[in-house]
Amino acid sequence: MSMNVNVSGLLEQVKAKKPLVHHITNYVTANDCANVVLAIGGSPIMADDIEEVQDIVSLSSALVLNIGTLNKRTIESMLVAGKKANELGIPVIFDPVGAGATKLRDKTAERIINELKLAVIRGNMSEIKSVSGLGSTTRGVDASEKDILLLGDLNYGKSIADELSSRLDCVVAITGPVDIVSKDGTTYFIENGHKMLSMITGSGCMCTSLIGVYCGVTNNYLEGTVAGVLTMGLAGEMAYESLTEDNRGSGSFRVKLVDSLSRITAKDVLERGRVHD
Amino acid sequence: MSMNVNVSGLLEQVKAKKPLVHHITNYVTANDCANVVLAIGGSPIMADDIEEVQDIVSLSSALVLNIGTLNKRTIESMLVAGKKANELGIPVIFDPVGAGATKLRDKTAERIINELKLAVIRGNMSEIKSVSGLGSTTRGVDASEKDILLLGDLNYGKSIADELSSRLDCVVAITGPVDIVSKDGTTYFIENGHKMLSMITGSGCMCTSLIGVYCGVTNNYLEGTVAGVLTMGLAGEMAYESLTEDNRGSGSFRVKLVDSLSRITAKDVLERGRVHD
Amino acid sequence: MSMNVNVSGLLEQVKAKKPLVHHITNYVTANDCANVVLAIGGSPIMADDIEEVQDIVSLSSALVLNIGTLNKRTIESMLVAGKKANELGIPVIFDPVGAGATKLRDKTAERIINELKLAVIRGNMSEIKSVSGLGSTTRGVDASEKDILLLGDLNYGKSIADELSSRLDCVVAITGPVDIVSKDGTTYFIENGHKMLSMITGSGCMCTSLIGVYCGVTNNYLEGTVAGVLTMGLAGEMAYESLTEDNRGSGSFRVKLVDSLSRITAKDVLERGRVHD
Repeated sequence: MSMNVNVSGLLEQVKAKKPLVHHITNYVTANDCANVVLAIGGSPIMADDIEEVQDIVSLSSALVLNIGTLNKRTIESMLVAGKKANELGIPVIFDPVGAGATKLRDKTAERIINELKLAVIRGNMSEIKSVSGLGSTTRGVDASEKDILLLGDLNYGKSIADELSSRLDCVVAITGPVDIVSKDGTTYFIENGHKMLSMITGSGCMCTSLIGVYCGVTNNYLEGTVAGVLTMGLAGEMAYESLTEDNRGSGSFRVKLVDSLSRITAKDVLERGRVHD
Repeated sequence: MSMNVNVSGLLEQVKAKKPLVHHITNYVTANDCANVVLAIGGSPIMADDIEEVQDIVSLSSALVLNIGTLNKRTIESMLVAGKKANELGIPVIFDPVGAGATKLRDKTAERIINELKLAVIRGNMSEIKSVSGLGSTTRGVDASEKDILLLGDLNYGKSIADELSSRLDCVVAITGPVDIVSKDGTTYFIENGHKMLSMITGSGCMCTSLIGVYCGVTNNYLEGTVAGVLTMGLAGEMAYESLTEDNRGSGSFRVKLVDSLSRITAKDVLERGRVHD
Repeated sequence: MSMNVNVSGLLEQVKAKKPLVHHITNYVTANDCANVVLAIGGSPIMADDIEEVQDIVSLSSALVLNIGTLNKRTIESMLVAGKKANELGIPVIFDPVGAGATKLRDKTAERIINELKLAVIRGNMSEIKSVSGLGSTTRGVDASEKDILLLGDLNYGKSIADELSSRLDCVVAITGPVDIVSKDGTTYFIENGHKMLSMITGSGCMCTSLIGVYCGVTNNYLEGTVAGVLTMGLAGEMAYESLTEDNRGSGSFRVKLVDSLSRITAKDVLERGRVHD
């Protein structure tokens, strides 16, 4: 792994510090997110009532905002929690699920971006293009075929990520066949991953939760983001490798993904991480 | 498979078209439903805020309404989304979870039936009897013992399904030990399935989601419904067969069910589907 | 198993009666809770709209209230359902998830305790201390390190459980490395369990759901609670034992946990239960 990001060191810090990660997130993948946070060594808490989100975020090391099944009640909770996190210097990680698909998602993403200081935004190409104001061909919560193809042109992806990162002064991660992570003109490309990750729900949400865990133990959110994205991709590879002819399906893959996250070591990261700038 | 329903052809169309299926559904089995939609080749989206359901349904190929954990907010969203789907000619698939158990469920089922044009209703015997106004001995979300026994008399089930289908001009599916699917006087009986499907939560919800996927690629909703019901039953059989002495339990069965759905082929359907009229 | 609690007999009654357990619970672990209730032989129903909770609880054999992702709407539903359960003599089992973490959780726990007659409260040491008014060092939804250490001193735990049990006239269960269950000056210590249970989300919630199942078939809620706690711990042991070198991770553990619950027999409980007073 020819890079300056100390992912293996961060993984050890996660195990030592067990950061609490507050999620205001969707009900489709909340269970998966909680389990991957526990698997990697963090502690998850999901709480979305406006009367308690400030208390919860005050106990936490990171705040994850995910608009997968947003509604009027939880949107307000996200903003209140985010402002409290900003006051306390707790990193806010934003996952603009389905941005571009509806006016409500676009308007909410805009409010979150304008009213909060974000540490990280992670999305697929369609979502990040949409948040960047470039339009997109978003189709539901998955990246469109057209936008996935765009990822073949890494320079194009890099330019999108750089521009948004520079405008919002936050880390931007575009995940896909190759993942792109940018901040302050520094860009990393991460080649770990497996295409079966796109056959289960919540790969993106889980990746964002892992970023939350790592950003809970470092002030270097660029490194924290690379660590989260790399860990997710590597766990996907390890999960696929552990499948046998008998269970090569998406149900077993999902189980093995959590197994891999709970077993991944600093050595795995050092030996198998494929990051370049 | 001595029948005129081209399930294997529909399966191939699903893989080719990857239909987006909008769900307004319960938080207990939403994750399972999303994963089975992905496993079979569709694309799921769960969204329930009244401000965005019209936008979401407009992008979709089918709309699934499931009242498993209904509440006042989501009931209104279901009706708004359903009306938009009707305007656009997008099939609405209704799963009256727990109909007969509470006045709220009965009243909501009635509103959905009266205010929307449904393509398909799928439920267990207790739910369909209740929706048909025949009373029922519903006990929670599972079919009552008494109603399950009634399924032994296929003619009785057929008469219930025919009557409701004729009255609402939609496909009616009653799932149980033998599944019954009716429309316009045509009835199919599907004998695929395994009793372990009743030992995990969400078998019914997942079946409804699969119907949504298939109805997203055909205008023949009777065929789409037979395809969904048959696929679910066949995946249950395949899942059970893949269990070993070491893992014959409901946790592993559930994992293998998703594996089976992600591996099932047109050939499996042709060779193993047991449908008769 | 040197004790007077007839857990194996209760397990047989569960299989025979299939008790319906109404849950008003969180969206993170609702699916897990539903699956463990089914695995052990009960029937779960999750329903939280204030207009239907009285109808649902009237059909049920037990009511589980879990404040994991409480909100203003569901808090009121919990109180309405609880009062109806009290009227009908249906046991109410309370899981004060995250008590001590926020003012909203503390205030809600207080209302539930003051306005309802509870049959059982189950929590970790931090939660039970908080509910007891002893303060706590709650950190999110997991017991704090400090409070877990306190469990090493079983007499201290027993005194906390005894005091709360006596004050509220209900069974109190503190779960941790050793579980403590108290009522009317009788205390049982349960030594079954495995540390991997703390690496997956929802172990506590699932335990509370199992207590709900058993209390649905007996009026002796102390026995019902011991049965639920013991069954959960024993399933954790059996799950761990069934892991192989290849899948020793938290994803597989979680699957095997449900497998074990669906396979556990009266004989397993008799031979392997480790309860003492």
